[in-house]
Amino acid sequence: MRPLREGSVVFVTFEGPEGSGKTTQIALLERALHATGRRVVATREPGGTPIGEQIRAVLHAHENVALVPAAEILLYAADRAQHVREVVVPALQRGDIVLSDRYAESTLAYQGYGRGLDMEALRHITAFATGGLRPDLVIYLDLDVELGLQRKRRAQALGRGEWNRMDEQATAFHQRVRTGYLTMAAEDPERWLVIDATRSIEAVHRVIYERIETML
Amino acid sequence: MRPLREGSVVFVTFEGPEGSGKTTQIALLERALHATGRRVVATREPGGTPIGEQIRAVLHAHENVALVPAAEILLYAADRAQHVREVVVPALQRGDIVLSDRYAESTLAYQGYGRGLDMEALRHITAFATGGLRPDLVIYLDLDVELGLQRKRRAQALGRGEWNRMDEQATAFHQRVRTGYLTMAAEDPERWLVIDATRSIEAVHRVIYERIETML
Repeated sequence: MRPLREGSVVFVTFEGPEGSGKTTQIALLERALHATGRRVVATREPGGTPIGEQIRAVLHAHENVALVPAAEILLYAADRAQHVREVVVPALQRGDIVLSDRYAESTLAYQGYGRGLDMEALRHITAFATGGLRPDLVIYLDLDVELGLQRKRRAQALGRGEWNRMDEQATAFHQRVRTGYLTMAAEDPERWLVIDATRSIEAVHRVIYERIETML
Repeated sequence: MRPLREGSVVFVTFEGPEGSGKTTQIALLERALHATGRRVVATREPGGTPIGEQIRAVLHAHENVALVPAAEILLYAADRAQHVREVVVPALQRGDIVLSDRYAESTLAYQGYGRGLDMEALRHITAFATGGLRPDLVIYLDLDVELGLQRKRRAQALGRGEWNRMDEQATAFHQRVRTGYLTMAAEDPERWLVIDATRSIEAVHRVIYERIETML
């Protein structure tokens, strides 16, 4: 697949732990961009397509405790391959702005840095899945690991959000994931925007919106 | 993953189009080996594990016509990664003989030769999925493409077998797949056994059994 990118198209991805406010920030940004008359597609991984939702169900099912790391990585990659070709590329070709809740960097952070799997193999698989399409901007909502898990548990106790298999991993894993994100951001600061997710929703939104505006 | 292979363990995979008699031959071989007191695990891809069955359902569902080739490959690879680690390697470590209905060579034949996808990328993904575990013997049941499709349609008309999305592909595709299998077999004759699947069930079984006996 040739990633056909022309003109001022913008592909923005959101990364960060559960509880960091990605969903809220995507909704706020989508609304703000709509208000200026822009066309926006908000999507997510895993999921975002009917086939992706079926894959997401396999990944997140509590009964699938036997899922091995290599299979997990390939399922995320399969979802991504479908998502890129069915949703992201067609939207960018129409000239829409695409906001994605997670993308390729999640694989490198969770499976590479987090689980310690072969980063070179992960890059090969990710490049195959994405057909080479990279985000113009990766927004990383950075949050202390313990604080993020507390937020998630509280949301679930209130009946919001889902508590899934990934959340049950040890805190040490999430620490490695965070370090991974911060390392990738430090290596490519032009393409990453790291924001302290403990700031107010409005303050985080303002930082994001201002950065996007400079790109349009 | 280190593929732990010791002693006279045997991993045999069966390849060939639908209608070539793989299922029948695996059942006959399994019975014959059992009769000599050997422990045999017969399994299949896609499927073969509870997680694999869920992946198989996504791959074979008629409504998933939007499934893109890259996602299809990664789903097969995810199934394989689970299958190798949950079924094949543990059985080989116990000293059992493993018979698998399809394995890595299916990906190279169908997605590589058949769909013309990047063979180098496929080899990377396959190596990741299998952890480097290769079959000791690949049995290819070779059948004229038109004849194979006729057999499959007849079986389905009789209420046996399933007619799935893969079967609906054009004949030209199946021709390329057949050429792919024959090319791989020609390149590695020590590891491949090509059998004319139009021969009688008993004759095909005899050829297979004699070859397996020499390996045990």
